[in-house]
Amino acid sequence: MKEIISKDNKLIKYVSKLQSSAKFRREEQRFVSEGLRVCLEAVSSGAEITDVLITDEALSKHESALKPLLESNAKIYLTNKNTLSHACDTKTPQGVVCVLKTLDNNIDFDTINNKYVFLENIQDPSNLGTILRTADALGVSGVIMTRDCCDIYSPKVCRGAMGALFRVPFTFVDNAQKFISDFNNHGTSYAAVVRDADAVSKVSFQGSALVAIGNEGNGLTDATASACTQRITIPMNGVAESLNAAIAAGILMWEMIK
Amino acid sequence: MKEIISKDNKLIKYVSKLQSSAKFRREEQRFVSEGLRVCLEAVSSGAEITDVLITDEALSKHESALKPLLESNAKIYLTNKNTLSHACDTKTPQGVVCVLKTLDNNIDFDTINNKYVFLENIQDPSNLGTILRTADALGVSGVIMTRDCCDIYSPKVCRGAMGALFRVPFTFVDNAQKFISDFNNHGTSYAAVVRDADAVSKVSFQGSALVAIGNEGNGLTDATASACTQRITIPMNGVAESLNAAIAAGILMWEMIK
Repeated sequence: MKEIISKDNKLIKYVSKLQSSAKFRREEQRFVSEGLRVCLEAVSSGAEITDVLITDEALSKHESALKPLLESNAKIYLTNKNTLSHACDTKTPQGVVCVLKTLDNNIDFDTINNKYVFLENIQDPSNLGTILRTADALGVSGVIMTRDCCDIYSPKVCRGAMGALFRVPFTFVDNAQKFISDFNNHGTSYAAVVRDADAVSKVSFQGSALVAIGNEGNGLTDATASACTQRITIPMNGVAESLNAAIAAGILMWEMIK
Repeated sequence: MKEIISKDNKLIKYVSKLQSSAKFRREEQRFVSEGLRVCLEAVSSGAEITDVLITDEALSKHESALKPLLESNAKIYLTNKNTLSHACDTKTPQGVVCVLKTLDNNIDFDTINNKYVFLENIQDPSNLGTILRTADALGVSGVIMTRDCCDIYSPKVCRGAMGALFRVPFTFVDNAQKFISDFNNHGTSYAAVVRDADAVSKVSFQGSALVAIGNEGNGLTDATASACTQRITIPMNGVAESLNAAIAAGILMWEMIK
């Protein structure tokens, strides 16, 4: 096990750059997971881990729990809290950090009764992370994203998703309208909108279904909403104009899955 | 209209301290709202505004929209962006900041078919803000909180709530169990728990109802869960252990209200 004690170490700088730059993550096709639990989930999901940084403190505290990581094909580096903090997005790093290849969670579109969520231009990483966590908890079959959504591998998304990246199948599409039209051949797509729509509580979501959710400020584009089979909405009894995008997505996924 | 151009001005320091210290907010019984829209909602809700800080830029841009604020009983101060940034919690202040007396949104427990949410020891300000915003949007009749919840007047809660503080009735209780026992005399209380409970989709929430939601990590205390009439849960089909507290609260409020 090699030791890293300098914040100027190449790997520390590499991890730090992966944490801060979406462009660099795309170029390198790598991202970073922080925390013992999430790193262990990464191993058990079969994700390819290239490097693991562990503080001396974490190693002595969690030696047996760390076994799957230590026995993986990844290179293992021993470091200390202060050095690791230069590679971490959080102020108080948990002592275990992994570098991983970006995932290839292909969605299986073949089965008959699957439920999907389609996200168009979601911009807030906390919202995307929470939507992934919710999709995972409720048992959504897959998350489809347009390429203008915020980066799924950003530290904020990973933190909010709490390991859901390693469990929920997800994929990206270049052309939202084409994807939805194709989907309509074997399922029903529902556009979540704020007006001129059926109340979600009246929709049965039978068979394969997809619910499409748009940008936090502007909702779905007209083109994408029009591509969907049906328009649905969450009726608001109150005076607030709208729900937070993650809450709206949570209620819609719940209605689709329950 | 007085002018403030120094970051060392007494009011700038006072606002800054209100933003950063829950203890100071409690002692002074004051809190701060940021942003044109939220400040206007504060006026129209009848909240007592003591001071308003407006940048020269915001004044020239929004002069007519600002009228209700300028005509309120509050003292109005003209300032500039740089000075105001020292009084703001956000990096890019929106140009309008109010100091308000803490609210007295008494909940009306007299009507017959009201739906409430009861929060015990919610610790994350983003969660509390989002829950208030959701309660407002869905038309929940009131939010009841134990005193160990995070401070409802913190800048993060206010930001997440997007003005819901001025619209949703809320109150605090010293004794959760006593409050719920009293509530049970004229309604039904539901404890949101993770096991040994009925699926929320099977519950009708007829008449006056209250759903109790606990701390992010530990859920409801046993004593509070036991005080409730019925235990309910959101069935999880997936592998994640739990939903984010705000999402769980959103789904539960939706089921209760719809």
